Amino acid sequence: MQTHVQYLLYACLGACVLGLLFSFGKARWIEKQDPGNEKMVQISTWVREGAMAFLKREYLVLAIFVAVVTGFLYSANAGDLRWGAFAYPIGAGVSALTGYLGMKTATLANCRTAQAARKGICEALFVAFGGGSVMGMYVVSWGLFALTGLFLFFLGLFGCDLTAVNTLVLPVLTNYCMGASSVALFARVGGGIYTKAADVGADIAGKIVAGIPEDDPRNPGVIADNVGDNVGDVAGMGADLCESYNGAILSAMIFGAVIGIDTGNLMFAILPLVLSAVGIIVSIIGTLFVRTKEGGNPQTALNIGTFGAGALMIALSYPIIIYLIPSTFVLAGITFSAIGIFYALSVGLIGGILIGLITQYYTAENLSPVKKIALACKTGAGTNVIAGLGNGMLSTAFPTIVLGAVILVAYHFAGLYGVAIAAVGMLSTTGIQLATDAYGPIADNAGGLAEMAGLPPSVRKITDNLDAVGNSTAAIGKGFAIGSAALTALALFVAFKQAVHLETIDVSNPVVMVGLLIGSMLPFLFAAFSMSAVGEAACAIAEEVARQFRDIKGLLEGVPGVYADNTKCVDIAAREAIKRMMAPALIAIATPVFVGFVGGPEMLAGVLVGTTGTGVMMALFMANAGGSWDNAKKHIEGGGLGAENGKGSDVHKAAVTGDTVGDPFKDTAGPSLNILIKLISMVALVIAPMLI
Amino acid sequence: MQTHVQYLLYACLGACVLGLLFSFGKARWIEKQDPGNEKMVQISTWVREGAMAFLKREYLVLAIFVAVVTGFLYSANAGDLRWGAFAYPIGAGVSALTGYLGMKTATLANCRTAQAARKGICEALFVAFGGGSVMGMYVVSWGLFALTGLFLFFLGLFGCDLTAVNTLVLPVLTNYCMGASSVALFARVGGGIYTKAADVGADIAGKIVAGIPEDDPRNPGVIADNVGDNVGDVAGMGADLCESYNGAILSAMIFGAVIGIDTGNLMFAILPLVLSAVGIIVSIIGTLFVRTKEGGNPQTALNIGTFGAGALMIALSYPIIIYLIPSTFVLAGITFSAIGIFYALSVGLIGGILIGLITQYYTAENLSPVKKIALACKTGAGTNVIAGLGNGMLSTAFPTIVLGAVILVAYHFAGLYGVAIAAVGMLSTTGIQLATDAYGPIADNAGGLAEMAGLPPSVRKITDNLDAVGNSTAAIGKGFAIGSAALTALALFVAFKQAVHLETIDVSNPVVMVGLLIGSMLPFLFAAFSMSAVGEAACAIAEEVARQFRDIKGLLEGVPGVYADNTKCVDIAAREAIKRMMAPALIAIATPVFVGFVGGPEMLAGVLVGTTGTGVMMALFMANAGGSWDNAKKHIEGGGLGAENGKGSDVHKAAVTGDTVGDPFKDTAGPSLNILIKLISMVALVIAPMLI
Repeated sequence: MQTHVQYLLYACLGACVLGLLFSFGKARWIEKQDPGNEKMVQISTWVREGAMAFLKREYLVLAIFVAVVTGFLYSANAGDLRWGAFAYPIGAGVSALTGYLGMKTATLANCRTAQAARKGICEALFVAFGGGSVMGMYVVSWGLFALTGLFLFFLGLFGCDLTAVNTLVLPVLTNYCMGASSVALFARVGGGIYTKAADVGADIAGKIVAGIPEDDPRNPGVIADNVGDNVGDVAGMGADLCESYNGAILSAMIFGAVIGIDTGNLMFAILPLVLSAVGIIVSIIGTLFVRTKEGGNPQTALNIGTFGAGALMIALSYPIIIYLIPSTFVLAGITFSAIGIFYALSVGLIGGILIGLITQYYTAENLSPVKKIALACKTGAGTNVIAGLGNGMLSTAFPTIVLGAVILVAYHFAGLYGVAIAAVGMLSTTGIQLATDAYGPIADNAGGLAEMAGLPPSVRKITDNLDAVGNSTAAIGKGFAIGSAALTALALFVAFKQAVHLETIDVSNPVVMVGLLIGSMLPFLFAAFSMSAVGEAACAIAEEVARQFRDIKGLLEGVPGVYADNTKCVDIAAREAIKRMMAPALIAIATPVFVGFVGGPEMLAGVLVGTTGTGVMMALFMANAGGSWDNAKKHIEGGGLGAENGKGSDVHKAAVTGDTVGDPFKDTAGPSLNILIKLISMVALVIAPMLI
Repeated sequence: MQTHVQYLLYACLGACVLGLLFSFGKARWIEKQDPGNEKMVQISTWVREGAMAFLKREYLVLAIFVAVVTGFLYSANAGDLRWGAFAYPIGAGVSALTGYLGMKTATLANCRTAQAARKGICEALFVAFGGGSVMGMYVVSWGLFALTGLFLFFLGLFGCDLTAVNTLVLPVLTNYCMGASSVALFARVGGGIYTKAADVGADIAGKIVAGIPEDDPRNPGVIADNVGDNVGDVAGMGADLCESYNGAILSAMIFGAVIGIDTGNLMFAILPLVLSAVGIIVSIIGTLFVRTKEGGNPQTALNIGTFGAGALMIALSYPIIIYLIPSTFVLAGITFSAIGIFYALSVGLIGGILIGLITQYYTAENLSPVKKIALACKTGAGTNVIAGLGNGMLSTAFPTIVLGAVILVAYHFAGLYGVAIAAVGMLSTTGIQLATDAYGPIADNAGGLAEMAGLPPSVRKITDNLDAVGNSTAAIGKGFAIGSAALTALALFVAFKQAVHLETIDVSNPVVMVGLLIGSMLPFLFAAFSMSAVGEAACAIAEEVARQFRDIKGLLEGVPGVYADNTKCVDIAAREAIKRMMAPALIAIATPVFVGFVGGPEMLAGVLVGTTGTGVMMALFMANAGGSWDNAKKHIEGGGLGAENGKGSDVHKAAVTGDTVGDPFKDTAGPSLNILIKLISMVALVIAPMLI
């Protein structure tokens, strides 16, 4: 192996180790913070035990699934490609591990954030964001560590020449990425069903069966609801971005290796790893800037951290690209320059931030789109639903234009490699981006905990402030997740084309056309299944809650020392969520396999294109419609339409209907579509060698 | 010109004349039927005047629009292609004329159906279906007459050789088809906004401002509501299918002419005209079989007519194809046989019927999908909306599979020509298909008229029976319209590819990809605009109704001789509808022009593909979700969940919310998407010569 390549890869591993040390240290620091009084500790323990019970159940099913797929990969591949069956479970394991570690810290941070809020907002922000940054840094550090490590291992095994990289190393690494995808599918879809089913199930049982108020700790479903916030928004989002992160790096490496064949230079394939390693350092630095003074605005702190990390990333990547890449190179007959790669990376990063800001515009509580929806509640639930659906549909326009611009600019400056590099750029600051995402549910949980444990109103005010900022960053995070998923899926799709040796994917070929129609239909089918799963799982949870109230004497009466069996309830919720997610999961995995083997690689390519095109729009539509209904309700509750239209009024009831529709939209079906569009491309890429 | 070609085209014109005579005779016959008592005549006259007022307003705007586009086509084209500027207004004129004639008869038939229902169901069915068949036969006869006539004219002008047909005759005829498309855009989108805006506007003003019941003839908005049924479901659906019909024939001719170049045989280009001419005769025969005995089931009669016409079409097309087409021919190096064309035609026809039946399954009142939605109303409006959305999304799956199968089979047997012939087959019985579609609103209007004029309950029972059957056929018709739009759009898309001389449309090319993303986004944007237009137009109508109650003394009190100014109200409704449809219309027309000239033909091709894939799914989703909410409400009103959950109950209120959301879904945005996917392909095809 060339020595400087080797050292470069060791440096990447070093950056990952730095990220891991940071996460580990932060996690230990959070553990050492004051968890608050006994009641807080108790509730927090329930939530943590619940989240772990979910993971236990989920990982059990996952283990079986991974074992089956590993067996399939081993038997379906021949020769050295069989190493894919070894890389696949590693990918699944890494994603599962980060989910476990990240969620453990997040569920430790909730009560500690509430306790810190007694001292002030800067302390509370520091703990909450610290909890989120553990998740964020674990995802990128473990992900890049495993990817780089496996790359080094297979370079040693298969040889460091470019043919081996193209035909063996990267196809085997694809299996690693599909492992991460498989976990993402379970975490996002299962977690999405879980969080909304627990929410609705607890509400139904609490209000209708037992007649107790919302968020009452006697209701075993309430803990499940809090668990849901963690498994959906922390673990689900983490696995989602983990998949995008690995997928984007891999597809850029694949294109880089193709250039490598032409130029005899391996560096193009390694650059994505190097840039991502820089991104880890940058993210660590960014998190250090997220702090606020008493009376300061936590939003400003988060903005400085994320935007600052983006700017630093752009600044650092320039000398690195110029140093590593020859100043000009020829790709498919066209001469490109190294600075073009820098432009591609920058435009991807800026595009991701722009899409996030657009998403925020359409869903922010105090801006005109949401205000219009709130106004529509005055004429009833029907007009509210129409307004929200219309807003969600409208919100697809600008992100699409930004995405289009990113693709065109990146392609212009560095060809298809540029498009893949743009995705790497968009995801290079995933560490801090995911930290701000995961911070939201921690602050949310802290607020709930403060309420349940009866902490003073000043604490609640601080956590409310943090939570509001969390909602805003969550909107950005969702837009960011969708944008990066779209770009990753497109890059993977082109990689698939190369893997099956197709010259073109001609959509005017009826076989491709049929694939495109099937692909366009899949997101609708997937969304339909995941939405109906929420309803069914909610019923099962409501039944269990009712059973506990009936069977556990003294629970409903609030006799001291009598506790609800949260673990059981959460275990049932988890089992239901995983059971109900089987149908959508099967669609996502079986369709590309079936179409690939029966209809052939061209029809499968059509499916990938159709699913990406329609899936991105459906994901934007559902996430933003859901977000805007939620905030329209909050706007009304906050007196935006006058006190007479507040809680309990007909206008508020109309707003609640919209929010009910929006819940499975924004937290189940919408985010799950991110996984769908990436996963089917990943599956296609894995089975590509079998289709030739 | 070869003599037998000439005679064949004359024979086609003859079939069209037969169809015109049939329509004309039927229209005269309906006019001569007993229109009923004075009150019935009066209400019917209001509705007719209202519909004509809408057409007047619509055609005024259309005329300006057509003049501008004609000027553009004249100046943008050069040489003989300038004849396109002559064909375009003819296409617009033909579509507008059929809309005028068909709607005139439909609005004459409503009171006569109600009056005939006094005698019995067989008389009522005969009048109502007769009214519908006038619309249906006018559309196909005028459409094919003009297309064949222009083809003959330009053959004479440019010469009958295949090069002239390929490079001049068919490109000029494309302008004719775009004329029909332009009218379809206005009729479908404007009509769709009109019908729902009038519905909602009249309801708001009647109930809230004046406090009078639904369907009260004092309310000037009620007439507008009845007018809406005609302009939306009769004229809108007619223009929609007119566009599909012309577009399918044209694209098959284009592919046929390409084969002609290879084989030296013009017959492939002429066959679509001949088959469509046979379809006219078959449709006439089919309508003769639509009759029922006293106590008989009108559904059976309609089924015999439509399915019988389909079977007869298949039977007659076999000898015609075998006679006209050489037994084997070579296309792009592959040998095909004439019988393959027959298979393609048959599979298209059968596929269209299948898609219609699937649509019916998902929206029928007494089947499980709708029953599930009705059950969801028990837990409130939110769950009802979720269930309906889920059902609509789910309903995209099977029609997509049928469409895919049709495309693959047709392609296998006759290449791309086969795919276009499948579309011709699907639309060959448009005459009778549209007759059953247009029959629905006539029966619906007759029922409303019977109610308003206080006819005996036995009459209402008969019209209710006819109306229920009409709802069922409307569901089939909507599925049929979407399926044929999809197939037509795909054929037009491939024709565009040939017109701009692109070898392939490679979706792995980022430029095409960006087009695809923009195209996938368009249906969402279009739907968002058309839905919000309904809300805005409804407000304007409600204001006018309130003004009339305020200004016209004695109206609200019901003083005899004091009438509402229906024409004014309807004129405002029309003006509002047309004003509000400008934004979506502009999107549909400007996007392909802008992308084509700025982004180039490859990006434009991507837009067409994306819009078709996503647009078809959105159209199915919105039409079927809307239909199922409507019927879930009817199911509940009919006591399907017990008398305690009937009208006025909370369960019923939840069902009404779903129906409110469904109204713009199924009658405005959904059907308008049919136009969008065809129109942008048509616009692209027209500007193709300017893009080379």
